[in-house]
Amino acid sequence: MNATPESLVPDVAAYMRQVGEQARAAARLLSRSDTAARNQALHAIAEAIEAAVDSLKAENARDLEAGRERGLDAALLDRLELTDDRIAAMAEGLRQIAALPDPVGAISDLNYRPSGIQVGRMRVPLGVIGIIYESRPNVTADAAALCLKSGNAAILRGGSEAQHSNQAIAACIRIGLGQAGLPGTAVQVIETPDRAAVGELLRMQDCVDVIIPRGGKGLIERVSNESRIPVIKHLDGVCHVYIDDRADPDKAYAIALNAKTQRYGTCNTMETLLVHTGIADSILPRLAEAYRDKGVELRGCERTRAILGDITAATDADWDTEYLAPILAVRVVDDLDTAMDHIAAHGSQHTDAIVTEDYGRARRFLREVDSSSVMVNASTRFADGFEYGLGAEIGISTDKLHARGPVGLEGLTTLKFVVLGDGQVRG
Amino acid sequence: MNATPESLVPDVAAYMRQVGEQARAAARLLSRSDTAARNQALHAIAEAIEAAVDSLKAENARDLEAGRERGLDAALLDRLELTDDRIAAMAEGLRQIAALPDPVGAISDLNYRPSGIQVGRMRVPLGVIGIIYESRPNVTADAAALCLKSGNAAILRGGSEAQHSNQAIAACIRIGLGQAGLPGTAVQVIETPDRAAVGELLRMQDCVDVIIPRGGKGLIERVSNESRIPVIKHLDGVCHVYIDDRADPDKAYAIALNAKTQRYGTCNTMETLLVHTGIADSILPRLAEAYRDKGVELRGCERTRAILGDITAATDADWDTEYLAPILAVRVVDDLDTAMDHIAAHGSQHTDAIVTEDYGRARRFLREVDSSSVMVNASTRFADGFEYGLGAEIGISTDKLHARGPVGLEGLTTLKFVVLGDGQVRG
Repeated sequence: MNATPESLVPDVAAYMRQVGEQARAAARLLSRSDTAARNQALHAIAEAIEAAVDSLKAENARDLEAGRERGLDAALLDRLELTDDRIAAMAEGLRQIAALPDPVGAISDLNYRPSGIQVGRMRVPLGVIGIIYESRPNVTADAAALCLKSGNAAILRGGSEAQHSNQAIAACIRIGLGQAGLPGTAVQVIETPDRAAVGELLRMQDCVDVIIPRGGKGLIERVSNESRIPVIKHLDGVCHVYIDDRADPDKAYAIALNAKTQRYGTCNTMETLLVHTGIADSILPRLAEAYRDKGVELRGCERTRAILGDITAATDADWDTEYLAPILAVRVVDDLDTAMDHIAAHGSQHTDAIVTEDYGRARRFLREVDSSSVMVNASTRFADGFEYGLGAEIGISTDKLHARGPVGLEGLTTLKFVVLGDGQVRG
Repeated sequence: MNATPESLVPDVAAYMRQVGEQARAAARLLSRSDTAARNQALHAIAEAIEAAVDSLKAENARDLEAGRERGLDAALLDRLELTDDRIAAMAEGLRQIAALPDPVGAISDLNYRPSGIQVGRMRVPLGVIGIIYESRPNVTADAAALCLKSGNAAILRGGSEAQHSNQAIAACIRIGLGQAGLPGTAVQVIETPDRAAVGELLRMQDCVDVIIPRGGKGLIERVSNESRIPVIKHLDGVCHVYIDDRADPDKAYAIALNAKTQRYGTCNTMETLLVHTGIADSILPRLAEAYRDKGVELRGCERTRAILGDITAATDADWDTEYLAPILAVRVVDDLDTAMDHIAAHGSQHTDAIVTEDYGRARRFLREVDSSSVMVNASTRFADGFEYGLGAEIGISTDKLHARGPVGLEGLTTLKFVVLGDGQVRG
């Protein structure tokens, strides 16, 4: 393979078919690779990236130049850029993933059955993972590392604006794979910017086991609608904090402030604050002042506005909006049930928190709120693979099947049954 | 609701929308129901079924008569019939499911993180499960029980030929739900035989969390192709037994015979026997004689035929065929790798077994064969939820995501993250 893609792919369907079959074959070889070989590959890739700083920056400069010519905005160009620091961080990320425990091959629950057979479950790779992402080139190294560590072959499709950067990183990955004796096709970065390649990828059920889209909502919806392959995806993060009337006011203040203002653009940021009517009069003015200091615009229900005065009225649309911005919807509610009804009606099943010192209400909230993360007395901002101790994160799933919430290495594996016998037959 | 369906459903889309919304609302109520209430409902449904034997048989007689008029074959009419024994077995099945441990609400891996929060995972219902099945009316009670036990609301769509039987069972289910104080809409059996209802069901992503088709391959392929909702499905069972040259011949003989002949029509029945060339001369003639006694037709590769003489030559198609009949394809292979290559190329990732006394080969087979059940020295016929100790089985999944292999109550649940804090915020 080669880093000048356009000329190489006259027939996208045939090219993608070849990529898929190579990935399937590589997955079988990976399934028999041992932990040491996969870790060795990750370290070798890190070294290859460090050794290639100059060529990575040169290829990245081509992408940046093309991006400027196409008039990409400054934020996008910033995400696209590979600096010395970012290249060093990529290599460091690979080494951190190498240091994680190997999830593959672990056998659990191995028990004898009355028939005399022993039945257990073995954690195994999913097989071939297709990842479709946008402009950040570091995702290429990160996604490759997570797939490789968990024993999966990967087909990566990055944004076309990062095409040269991604192919340069792919070359480093192939060097590392080769040094560890693993097939170079274990990680393939699609070489054509042709969008038809994505359509082909999403229809290769025989070659690809799961598709993970990473990026904006538009990308994710397009991929889920078009895919014939199961998708692990992240859609909205309309997260709530509910301050109960039995909340500790200082904890409520700290959590409501942190959940909104620690970062505005993240999926686990609070978008709607629900406040029990019994504590609203005392806590809302104090919180409103803090939000005002941070420049957060409040949009309130009528009862909120009766307490706070000069704030915008929330419309129906506000309760369903993921602002990803310094805006917060606020609603005063009568009780826990109303709060949970609101979350069921308007939430996105991502992350929701209650602040309360009441044991029974905490238990009910934990059990009844149907979100990927449900919290008591903690900021929604903790919903994150690293904070949860997963060691890595490929994304946060808002699906219910297979992987829910932050997805680490375990989410890239599945369990098969293993049966050990001594000649048993069924009677 | 009422048991005379046709007249009731003038607008299928509106009817299904109502069914979906009622299921979603019932799922929320079920999520706060306790173990005792759900078990009480299962016992009450069993009693209602026992009390309704006469009306169940009368409604079933209507289906049987309509089936005879439509010229259904004898096997289908037999599956359709509700006898006293089958009605008693339905009630007994409900009580067995009531006696199983409640999977819902269990919290695992609750650990402190450096930030001070405690993070764990809670097992919760999937929400609303849509089950589409064929003519056996007992599936109505069985599927309802598994969904209810695992805290899920169910939308059931049985075969139109069992319409009256299914509605009569549905009436018993509603009685039991009511007696336990649970919503009658927790289990809804679709009241119209109109096929458009299935199309509507498969597009209600907002109301239904997972679709489980149970029946023939035609049904399952149609449902998977059409569904916009994740599907847990069972496709082919092209299962293999590989007899290694280091096999104990008596174990190999017993397992190969049992895996093929204990039952012919089941998905975990062996369809292809692979035999190491080093043991083929001694074991194949003995096995061939036993198969002949059982009336099993053998179809062999050239080397098999060189040993056994007068058997049919296997064609390429034989290696990919799930016979579900007394037919067996036999191939002599050079070694373990060739056997595993054959399974990877022709198997359906359902259940595959090795017979060997060699430790290293057993380990390789367990690790490298990518099937939902992988066995050493045991008959493939053990691949079953009851034999595995799951206590119940809604089906065997040949998918990789979420649930793989026999699916019991756990497969009808998912894990959410729970976070317990004392006011922690993210720094």
